[in-house]
Amino acid sequence: MKQMFQNAKEASRALMLLTDEQRNDVLLRVAERAEASVEKLLAANALDLQKLEPSDPLYDRLLLTPERIQGIAADLRNVAKLPSPLGIISKERTLANGLYLRRISVPFGVIGVIFEARPNVCFDVFSLCFKSGNACILKGSRSAQHSNEAIVALIHGVLREADPPQPSLGRESSPFKGELEGVFLLPPTHEATAELLGAVGYVDLCIPRGGRKLIDFVRDNARVPVIETGAGVVHAYFDKDGDLEKGQRIIANAKMRRVSVCNALDCLLVHRDRVGDIPALLAPMKGRVEIVEDEAAMGTEWMDYKLSLKIVDNLDEALAHIARYGSGHSECIITENEAAAARFQQMVDAACVYVNAPTSFTDGAQFGLGAEIGISTQKLGPRGPMALEEMTTYKWLINGNGQVRK
Amino acid sequence: MKQMFQNAKEASRALMLLTDEQRNDVLLRVAERAEASVEKLLAANALDLQKLEPSDPLYDRLLLTPERIQGIAADLRNVAKLPSPLGIISKERTLANGLYLRRISVPFGVIGVIFEARPNVCFDVFSLCFKSGNACILKGSRSAQHSNEAIVALIHGVLREADPPQPSLGRESSPFKGELEGVFLLPPTHEATAELLGAVGYVDLCIPRGGRKLIDFVRDNARVPVIETGAGVVHAYFDKDGDLEKGQRIIANAKMRRVSVCNALDCLLVHRDRVGDIPALLAPMKGRVEIVEDEAAMGTEWMDYKLSLKIVDNLDEALAHIARYGSGHSECIITENEAAAARFQQMVDAACVYVNAPTSFTDGAQFGLGAEIGISTQKLGPRGPMALEEMTTYKWLINGNGQVRK
Repeated sequence: MKQMFQNAKEASRALMLLTDEQRNDVLLRVAERAEASVEKLLAANALDLQKLEPSDPLYDRLLLTPERIQGIAADLRNVAKLPSPLGIISKERTLANGLYLRRISVPFGVIGVIFEARPNVCFDVFSLCFKSGNACILKGSRSAQHSNEAIVALIHGVLREADPPQPSLGRESSPFKGELEGVFLLPPTHEATAELLGAVGYVDLCIPRGGRKLIDFVRDNARVPVIETGAGVVHAYFDKDGDLEKGQRIIANAKMRRVSVCNALDCLLVHRDRVGDIPALLAPMKGRVEIVEDEAAMGTEWMDYKLSLKIVDNLDEALAHIARYGSGHSECIITENEAAAARFQQMVDAACVYVNAPTSFTDGAQFGLGAEIGISTQKLGPRGPMALEEMTTYKWLINGNGQVRK
Repeated sequence: MKQMFQNAKEASRALMLLTDEQRNDVLLRVAERAEASVEKLLAANALDLQKLEPSDPLYDRLLLTPERIQGIAADLRNVAKLPSPLGIISKERTLANGLYLRRISVPFGVIGVIFEARPNVCFDVFSLCFKSGNACILKGSRSAQHSNEAIVALIHGVLREADPPQPSLGRESSPFKGELEGVFLLPPTHEATAELLGAVGYVDLCIPRGGRKLIDFVRDNARVPVIETGAGVVHAYFDKDGDLEKGQRIIANAKMRRVSVCNALDCLLVHRDRVGDIPALLAPMKGRVEIVEDEAAMGTEWMDYKLSLKIVDNLDEALAHIARYGSGHSECIITENEAAAARFQQMVDAACVYVNAPTSFTDGAQFGLGAEIGISTQKLGPRGPMALEEMTTYKWLINGNGQVRK
């Protein structure tokens, strides 16, 4: 496995030399190859599915269909169309001594992604990493291993046919021999996860995509930098000055649009003065969403048609509740009072803080950022939707002419 | 200790409510108090020093003097003069559906800093954290504990007299009772370090400031996000097309300006065609710097008047050497060849990549960023000099009017 990490590190250096056109060309060819390989992909997928009952919820998550593969190809083409996040100069200055400084976006290098089920994640992660100049190491679940292997083999086939990166300097030979590599698949074992999390010097960033248990395990055991994504204990606070009709729409949309996503509403806080409006507030969800007023259930991420409900005395109690139980993902206030809205947005410590709009909007594409790899709930590194720009770091370039420091 | 972490978390929320003027006022008062408390600080410092021989290098690092305290006060006043890094909008857009999005800089919350010796670090870290709206938890070394306690007590004295933050919302009472707190000092024990590194949910970021051993320990044991700072294995590559006179100045400055700092040069790589120029290149350091041509010593951070030397066949061999032995801090090429310079800056994966200028410039103040807390050598989060802006994260504010997602 050490050899794979070493290969990934070297691949990441070769990937730096590609142009955006070369990257897009590869993505378009992967899309084409996916469409042309439906039978092969479905055959591999069938090997994974045969171990499951079709009634198992995992079955649907693992399932590939011709339509889903069409969707995957469309996603790949969309990523190819996005502007490159690389080479963007975020700071530029010439110092008094003549030194010329630039801060420029560059790939992280090697990104490890640990994920559960859904084999389409292989395509997603590869496309976002490749477009942003990163090599990726994937660790999927055992239940999807045949599918994941088939997908990675398909991508490898395209990469093998692609032109290798050309050294930008004519006078010396490139150190990058052999074929272009961009994606590596680990075996679906705990040992592989442990090796990945300990690969200091080879893996620049690790992103767990999955449930709370996986995220906690990765954070607690990684020696490489980690971005925690996804886990969302999401609140909406209906303020003393909330508009009832907006509240009805926002709460229903945040809760019911898709209950299984991380931006779905988990807990509704209502100002004591508006207790009488609760039946009307909940009316759009009647018969579909179970209301839970159990204090012990506060802080639960439901992923289901359930909603915690709590009455609070004032805005500050709502803030304190969110500080205690929120996961720093998305939080929302419904109010017509501008001072209350401003204070909520100032004091809530979360990636996305909404006024009079549902948390369902927390999504890279909705924010106009393009495709996303996840929603970061931590404060170090990118926070909130992680699209292409958030998959880059930067370096400082300093150009002088023999200046020295006093 | 759990209680201290809880207090720090709550303090960080109160700190969010301060204005920049209030923050600057506190910093100026701490500067004044430090100047007025020279005797008290020196008395505490003497308790630490009495355990050491004056010939011990640690003695000088621990030592406070009236002049050093003047310097500390000047630094505090400088930080107060810097523009606030908070509330800066880095993205702003109105979506087609009318949602108004802003990405705005905010404090991390609670920053833990583990440091060795030098008690002035208490003032430095406090001032940068306080100015950027963060609460800080300090863990110093046992050898400086009396000094650190006196400094933190001095800061606490100023904070106790400061006006508590005013709730921005008149209609409800502030949840932030009691005095303003901004800095917490842990006992100088391993147990305290372990607690700090495991304080998930309370500590948003941990920064080790010290040698390689401390940094490795923190990275390997932390469950909270970490920024690795400081360790610098720094290279200069004298290219086939390097200018000899520039090379002499740059190499001597990078190596000898201060040998004990992280941006000091550790290894000189010379193109084979320029072997004959090596005596001239090294001439300015003659008799002061020991040249080490031992392959086994490659990758050593000398912190001393020593310099590794290696002949390479070409630029790509230099790049491969730096990729293998560099620590991602600062790297430099000396060349008049623009293609070689461009390739070096493209391919070297480090925080700061120089052309024809010495790595001694890697410093927040030199870059025009203001005071710095350290040089980050990792790629997740801030990279390179960490000044005030790099001590903030951001959040997304989304303001709507009842829009819902399809």
